[in-house]
Amino acid sequence: MNCLSPSILSADYSILGEQLKQLDEAGAQYVHIDVMDGSFVPSISIGLPVIKTIRKCTERMFDVHLMIDEPVRYIDDFAAAGADIITVHAEACKHLDRTIEAIKEKGILAGVALNPATPLSAIEYVLPKVDMVLIMTVNPGFGGQKLIPYTVDKVRDLKALLEKTANKADIEVDGGVNLENVETLLAAGANIIVAGSAVFSGDIEENVKGFLNIMM
Amino acid sequence: MNCLSPSILSADYSILGEQLKQLDEAGAQYVHIDVMDGSFVPSISIGLPVIKTIRKCTERMFDVHLMIDEPVRYIDDFAAAGADIITVHAEACKHLDRTIEAIKEKGILAGVALNPATPLSAIEYVLPKVDMVLIMTVNPGFGGQKLIPYTVDKVRDLKALLEKTANKADIEVDGGVNLENVETLLAAGANIIVAGSAVFSGDIEENVKGFLNIMM
Amino acid sequence: MNCLSPSILSADYSILGEQLKQLDEAGAQYVHIDVMDGSFVPSISIGLPVIKTIRKCTERMFDVHLMIDEPVRYIDDFAAAGADIITVHAEACKHLDRTIEAIKEKGILAGVALNPATPLSAIEYVLPKVDMVLIMTVNPGFGGQKLIPYTVDKVRDLKALLEKTANKADIEVDGGVNLENVETLLAAGANIIVAGSAVFSGDIEENVKGFLNIMM
Amino acid sequence: MNCLSPSILSADYSILGEQLKQLDEAGAQYVHIDVMDGSFVPSISIGLPVIKTIRKCTERMFDVHLMIDEPVRYIDDFAAAGADIITVHAEACKHLDRTIEAIKEKGILAGVALNPATPLSAIEYVLPKVDMVLIMTVNPGFGGQKLIPYTVDKVRDLKALLEKTANKADIEVDGGVNLENVETLLAAGANIIVAGSAVFSGDIEENVKGFLNIMM
Amino acid sequence: MNCLSPSILSADYSILGEQLKQLDEAGAQYVHIDVMDGSFVPSISIGLPVIKTIRKCTERMFDVHLMIDEPVRYIDDFAAAGADIITVHAEACKHLDRTIEAIKEKGILAGVALNPATPLSAIEYVLPKVDMVLIMTVNPGFGGQKLIPYTVDKVRDLKALLEKTANKADIEVDGGVNLENVETLLAAGANIIVAGSAVFSGDIEENVKGFLNIMM
Amino acid sequence: MNCLSPSILSADYSILGEQLKQLDEAGAQYVHIDVMDGSFVPSISIGLPVIKTIRKCTERMFDVHLMIDEPVRYIDDFAAAGADIITVHAEACKHLDRTIEAIKEKGILAGVALNPATPLSAIEYVLPKVDMVLIMTVNPGFGGQKLIPYTVDKVRDLKALLEKTANKADIEVDGGVNLENVETLLAAGANIIVAGSAVFSGDIEENVKGFLNIMM
Repeated sequence: MNCLSPSILSADYSILGEQLKQLDEAGAQYVHIDVMDGSFVPSISIGLPVIKTIRKCTERMFDVHLMIDEPVRYIDDFAAAGADIITVHAEACKHLDRTIEAIKEKGILAGVALNPATPLSAIEYVLPKVDMVLIMTVNPGFGGQKLIPYTVDKVRDLKALLEKTANKADIEVDGGVNLENVETLLAAGANIIVAGSAVFSGDIEENVKGFLNIMM
Repeated sequence: MNCLSPSILSADYSILGEQLKQLDEAGAQYVHIDVMDGSFVPSISIGLPVIKTIRKCTERMFDVHLMIDEPVRYIDDFAAAGADIITVHAEACKHLDRTIEAIKEKGILAGVALNPATPLSAIEYVLPKVDMVLIMTVNPGFGGQKLIPYTVDKVRDLKALLEKTANKADIEVDGGVNLENVETLLAAGANIIVAGSAVFSGDIEENVKGFLNIMM
Repeated sequence: MNCLSPSILSADYSILGEQLKQLDEAGAQYVHIDVMDGSFVPSISIGLPVIKTIRKCTERMFDVHLMIDEPVRYIDDFAAAGADIITVHAEACKHLDRTIEAIKEKGILAGVALNPATPLSAIEYVLPKVDMVLIMTVNPGFGGQKLIPYTVDKVRDLKALLEKTANKADIEVDGGVNLENVETLLAAGANIIVAGSAVFSGDIEENVKGFLNIMM
Repeated sequence: MNCLSPSILSADYSILGEQLKQLDEAGAQYVHIDVMDGSFVPSISIGLPVIKTIRKCTERMFDVHLMIDEPVRYIDDFAAAGADIITVHAEACKHLDRTIEAIKEKGILAGVALNPATPLSAIEYVLPKVDMVLIMTVNPGFGGQKLIPYTVDKVRDLKALLEKTANKADIEVDGGVNLENVETLLAAGANIIVAGSAVFSGDIEENVKGFLNIMM
Repeated sequence: MNCLSPSILSADYSILGEQLKQLDEAGAQYVHIDVMDGSFVPSISIGLPVIKTIRKCTERMFDVHLMIDEPVRYIDDFAAAGADIITVHAEACKHLDRTIEAIKEKGILAGVALNPATPLSAIEYVLPKVDMVLIMTVNPGFGGQKLIPYTVDKVRDLKALLEKTANKADIEVDGGVNLENVETLLAAGANIIVAGSAVFSGDIEENVKGFLNIMM
Repeated sequence: MNCLSPSILSADYSILGEQLKQLDEAGAQYVHIDVMDGSFVPSISIGLPVIKTIRKCTERMFDVHLMIDEPVRYIDDFAAAGADIITVHAEACKHLDRTIEAIKEKGILAGVALNPATPLSAIEYVLPKVDMVLIMTVNPGFGGQKLIPYTVDKVRDLKALLEKTANKADIEVDGGVNLENVETLLAAGANIIVAGSAVFSGDIEENVKGFLNIMM
């Protein structure tokens, strides 16, 4: 199934509860939460207290994307705060298998994210353990960037690899996704679509429905 | 003048705009914003997108406390996001004077924070340049801790040092402050009072007024 | 030739000399020494003074496995302490070729270890220089873990790669190896078998002989 | 009371249990255990599995000296392994007060160590919480060094500071201590004496008694 | 076109301007500038003030090779100092695509360097964006080393990969190149030749001409 | 004796040998060499190959100022390259005493530098071992900055401390020194004067003589 995962990196934090309700009512299945530590990526965004206090606003999947060094240190905390999926970067983990195991031990879904330049070989052995692969379609750290064209090829390569091994992991794309390019990404094999400014600029519900019309 | 700086670390992020208005109307002069990077302190809290989107809610002083490694990397970003005061930890800066200068070049106020164990000698030479010294009264990283008694002595020592050098820098205290101990802290020399759970548990406006009654 | 390399991570350090003699007499060809620095892996185990003072107890091969960051810093010390083989992690070396060269310059054997998730491409170019490849069959850091099934495939892939290039490097496996699964590992291509708790729980000599019966 | 704390850094790890019994029978009150991570200090020594398996050999105080970066990460592990005292370096802790608290929460004694060059101001505020201050009398990392003369002055300064504040914390000295200089150190104010090669070179029991004769 | 890029790592810094003129007059097309930070590589060489003040001596291409951690921090500075090409190490970049983009935004050429052990998969996705790939033929950090034979195979593999994808990126080789082996490297596919001691030992102009005779 | 130590950070690297001769002939006693690693300070300047190849140009004292992390790693290299004095930053050394000892073992002079904000307590115990203390009068990393006024007080405090302990260590000042403020610095107690742009802008020999006229 295709799912939309609006990234609250582009939300208005003075009325976040209200915006979460709009997303929910418009039918967005996930809430994408971009955690940045100022070291793995060059920005500092949001973390535990935000997740904890908005958990009550919606029952949609909290899709927590940890753009932080050695995320294994914080798996317990983000699981306790309310994450349904935790995605870690392959580039940020000395022990990727252990980090994935730590997520799964919490009874939630485990994702692995790859920066644009990172080859798929980085996950070839752990792929059977992973619930979702997040292909970064921009360099992580900021909203509002333009999708990097070659990352669509990587989505296609990943799709082929998953099919070859009869692996049912989800393929998520994140960065520069909008109503113009989402079909291309779906066609390449992505089924979880992150969108930030394309959802939060203008009318949220309308934007969500625009995506869902194409995606369903 | 004494000022109350409620820490939004303990706020409800689903209705943050509303809570900021309550703080404002109740008379709290500052808004304390605790930025944590998961490396300098063992938690990840809030950062740039939150500050940017709540800036419009209030004209009160945004008192941004950077609990992050080498904060000099992010001074421009936090100033642009809307900080009125930026406070950095002496323990986190290889070049403390340069970091203070970077803040002042933005035309805003510069604070230096000291962990409980850090001696005042860490700031003896830069003190004339500093607008505020933040004496941590708990180990930074979490809300809801108990004030460490010896830190009151450090407030007293700092007050004596400032008086000896005719220095008018503010003294801020942060951690475990409540209606029971705030008088002791004021008597020791503190004039900017951070309070988190003591403000956000229960009725916010009442709590703020409780503090202001004692402080004014 | 197949060799058993009992890991003294599971030994009793009050009677280590005695246990080394038991291993020796039972016919174990190697002694596996797990050095952990608390940074590359989340534990701190044993290091130089242990190796130096037990070197006199046996003439068996000291198979030193450095689970430490940038092992190139310590090659000289571990060689001087008595190592016959030094194995470094590909993930821990900025300059893997230089690190291997530093080992070989000491006139001893050089191994490269790969964490479970690390692809074989990490060593494709240095493989001709390497005397042994250590395929981690658990996440390194602790004794007593269960073997990760997909790592057996990696052993098989490595064996195929070595055969294709007529390379005679040894294949070592480490983690969760016991009398039940050792045959599978040998069949997959491993010829140096590390065993910790499976050797040191119960009667050491009997355990060693149990392994050697299967392996020879 | 004066106590001798022989450092097993200089022990023979093939017969450690036996040597621990000799220390015990000769009357040494503590066992000093030097944990080195190869990053805070330029050597890697011993860690958790050693402590765990020798704990049964003696009921003497295990005086664990963590020469490791950010020791707060490993307090639980070393307490569980059997430490009676854990000493951390002020230079290695971003949050020294928190680290001391973490030790005390385990119900064991907390020490703080200072490198030769580190001033006493580093501990002036936490001193009331500390059970022991370890004045390094050599640069940590290796056995067999010569005591640095000015560190005796530091012992004297610390003794004066403790007396001024009616603080009963122990003063431990570590590095280059022998039968020739121990009296000077005791006179300066030290009451816990670490000795490594001076205890383990030659006859252990005789050496211990030599120290105790001077110390009691 | 084949180009010679003499590395000034082996130059005489008392008469650098004069030597640059000799290189220029003898026809060397590039000037290779090896920047080392003492962390990514184990030496500290030259940096910004050198480049700035020699920029006036020649109009040849300044081919700046950054052997530094996270080079994205210094792209602006080296571009401003006068670089025509900036090459970064894949191993040193958390965000390789972003770093390449940062170089290209300066309107100069972008190279990616690979240590001897690093597989070509590290650049498979960014290859279309890259103007030059630098295959290290020794471990970076020092002049005067011997070329590692297997790196010639890597040049050949890269050439094949570029041809397969109709990619016109340059292939540069650096380390141990001399008049005896340069033909082999050219035959393997390299077209930018770095030479240090082979150019600066003896008569510079003669050495340059020796290379150019073979290369043209 | 007062000495001038012109910093070649501001030199012209195309004619460095010539400029060194001018400094020498004009009577400057030292040559100040600023080594920056891009990590301890935010610039990368010059290092080993420069020092090695200019050593032959002059017999004046090479006063090497290491603005690098953990300088103990490079003491041997800089001594071998030709340093007569090596100065390290107290803030950059985990083990300051060991680092000073490593310099002295090379038979050369040892200096310790302090950033503007760093208190003198950082060196109170090692002071008897130190040949020179370098008081940074700007934040290290760049030439051409303005002297920070409070650092003159620190020079005065250091002078008083040295006199109290009958210590004959030199006091060097570095940053923003010019013909207008050098007298103030000498009066405060400095006797080794670093000057960069004030020496290299305009006529070098005239500038040197201008300083020496005031200093002698």
